[in-house]
Amino acid sequence: MGLKIDIPKSALLMLHCQNDIVKPEGKFAPSGIADQVAKHNLMEKWMAVIKASRDAGLRVVYVSNVFRPGFPELAGRVFPLMRGTKEFGAFIRGTWGAAIPDEIKPLPDEIIIENYNSSAFSYTDLDLILRANGIGYLFLAGVATTFVVNSTARYGAELGYEITVLEDCCTAFSDEMHDFEVTKVLPHFGTVSGSADFMAALADR
Amino acid sequence: MGLKIDIPKSALLMLHCQNDIVKPEGKFAPSGIADQVAKHNLMEKWMAVIKASRDAGLRVVYVSNVFRPGFPELAGRVFPLMRGTKEFGAFIRGTWGAAIPDEIKPLPDEIIIENYNSSAFSYTDLDLILRANGIGYLFLAGVATTFVVNSTARYGAELGYEITVLEDCCTAFSDEMHDFEVTKVLPHFGTVSGSADFMAALADR
Amino acid sequence: MGLKIDIPKSALLMLHCQNDIVKPEGKFAPSGIADQVAKHNLMEKWMAVIKASRDAGLRVVYVSNVFRPGFPELAGRVFPLMRGTKEFGAFIRGTWGAAIPDEIKPLPDEIIIENYNSSAFSYTDLDLILRANGIGYLFLAGVATTFVVNSTARYGAELGYEITVLEDCCTAFSDEMHDFEVTKVLPHFGTVSGSADFMAALADR
Amino acid sequence: MGLKIDIPKSALLMLHCQNDIVKPEGKFAPSGIADQVAKHNLMEKWMAVIKASRDAGLRVVYVSNVFRPGFPELAGRVFPLMRGTKEFGAFIRGTWGAAIPDEIKPLPDEIIIENYNSSAFSYTDLDLILRANGIGYLFLAGVATTFVVNSTARYGAELGYEITVLEDCCTAFSDEMHDFEVTKVLPHFGTVSGSADFMAALADR
Repeated sequence: MGLKIDIPKSALLMLHCQNDIVKPEGKFAPSGIADQVAKHNLMEKWMAVIKASRDAGLRVVYVSNVFRPGFPELAGRVFPLMRGTKEFGAFIRGTWGAAIPDEIKPLPDEIIIENYNSSAFSYTDLDLILRANGIGYLFLAGVATTFVVNSTARYGAELGYEITVLEDCCTAFSDEMHDFEVTKVLPHFGTVSGSADFMAALADR
Repeated sequence: MGLKIDIPKSALLMLHCQNDIVKPEGKFAPSGIADQVAKHNLMEKWMAVIKASRDAGLRVVYVSNVFRPGFPELAGRVFPLMRGTKEFGAFIRGTWGAAIPDEIKPLPDEIIIENYNSSAFSYTDLDLILRANGIGYLFLAGVATTFVVNSTARYGAELGYEITVLEDCCTAFSDEMHDFEVTKVLPHFGTVSGSADFMAALADR
Repeated sequence: MGLKIDIPKSALLMLHCQNDIVKPEGKFAPSGIADQVAKHNLMEKWMAVIKASRDAGLRVVYVSNVFRPGFPELAGRVFPLMRGTKEFGAFIRGTWGAAIPDEIKPLPDEIIIENYNSSAFSYTDLDLILRANGIGYLFLAGVATTFVVNSTARYGAELGYEITVLEDCCTAFSDEMHDFEVTKVLPHFGTVSGSADFMAALADR
Repeated sequence: MGLKIDIPKSALLMLHCQNDIVKPEGKFAPSGIADQVAKHNLMEKWMAVIKASRDAGLRVVYVSNVFRPGFPELAGRVFPLMRGTKEFGAFIRGTWGAAIPDEIKPLPDEIIIENYNSSAFSYTDLDLILRANGIGYLFLAGVATTFVVNSTARYGAELGYEITVLEDCCTAFSDEMHDFEVTKVLPHFGTVSGSADFMAALADR
């Protein structure tokens, strides 16, 4: 059964697609994500869903993991995932590593939300901007499935957003972790779909 | 290596341990959780960690899933997990199903937080109360591992709480789901420990 | 010019209209609010706007200031307004003082939100419930203008709610404080209107 | 009686001290604030409290009102104060108007929080950063007393911060509005003090 998309009320969220995590030279690459991105051709898939969204007039919103130099955000009790970020020195504002890759670069009028937690909603203005623009349906793409994608699905669902995870536009530290999330966990918080269905629905409006 | 507990700065969170989900007669029992609770003797384990906490002067805080009659909280877009709750008619305020079982009943001065999302922090006063009481370390027990435990670990870690999940005091729809969370996911958000270590640390102060 | 009301998208918020603050026998009466309530016949005005709202099918939502016995919510740094509450021993859950007066008692299916800050939105589920029910327009009545009314107008406006303060259904520690808020401050956060216009708009639908 | 300052647990918040609002050429100057800033020599006072804070090792945090081009943040229901901002075209990210004046420019390692509401806490990471750094005492300076200062005092007090407003380092649309806030309203949410006492306390450590 086909996915239906109410374009003005929807947004594609590109989550943590930044050089430090998706490129082999990135500081967070040792986590294994960059290899998974390459193995599953995610960059090409992201380019395709972004182009299809723009062509259809669907809003694209980027969420980037950004820290101030010196990591004052992580001065207190820090959970293991974030300790990694701090040790790698990744995602510092203004650096190449924190930037979104050229291949999927935002247009000048597209919104970038900066966060530094695992959820895109946590202590950011994402909810406020989506609300102000009447958006209620979110399509999620990015890395990692276990972290920003899962957390954003959870928090977003609780806030009343209808969540669709574009499963082949996400990856995790391993296929096992990704597969578990998309088959066992995320279906409880929304719909799990593929980018082909998403693009078909956008074309068929 | 032993767990250390700073008692006045810590709390045991009992998450969604309510009749509707942990008892075979409960409305949410068809989800399979009640069977898992029985299979793993969780009620006995909860009784033990609660008693050990009270004996040591560690604060016990309960978080209960509670809805108003008619589910006005779920009048809008509702995610699959919550649709189940609504269909089962579970967790209605004031009913037996929403109550905490007698075996693990709160003392008169213990705090009960009411929530209706998967995180104990989302749109509740939990963070405010913990802060006001100088609490920074949380020990989590309850059901389900995939939902309230995982979400509370995620949100709590982001807020700066140090999280310890008492793995043998939690369960999920299946052992597979529980095991995946405690081995692969939750260690990124905090520490996974067992109730024996927790009780030993409480005794050894 | 007439007020227009989109009834299914609107709610009347009755803010902190509780025995402890509006009745001469209430524990917070020494603050002077109870006298102001009597002087301005607020009880009669509240009864009238509640009746007009119910007759028109406009949702009435109550927000009550409620503390657990012993005030664990106020165990930390407490601001002067709340120190007063604690010293008076006011608004304890389950007491007559925390209850809503019989004259303006909620119907069984009307929602009561419990808060313990000056804003109705702060660490409560109010925003979530309003959202889930598609409500975007809020009409405020209650006490005190300077505290819960002002804070709820500020927080609500920031969240994207359109705020109308029913000025003759609010009062403060003194007429001077009330008048300052409704003439100088609140117009920056919404519309200041009177209950006669509100009831006329409800009748004229 | 003298003010006491626990320096490592405290911060000076410089609120909305930006060219568009404090300089006569600024886009928000027609509001009257720039004239009030000049009349009360606020720039000199801000320079003094910032210097005294830095000399004493007290953290200075800036909060700036910043909008994306086109004001996507204000696409929905917008309250009157913000309608003014949008009409004036003020506070656009990257413009001179949104920048902090050279006289009181942040040092490279000082934190700037971007907000676009009247509270510095609303949908920003301010609370998270303060918490992570163990800060519980806030000293407020900036414009306008009625808006960002009042809202930040309210929200901050609710979150458990102890608030001190440096009254001669704040101003509003008029002296009447400023005076009302500092004498009648703000004392309910914290302490109202003067910059001389603040600097004396910093010197006397």
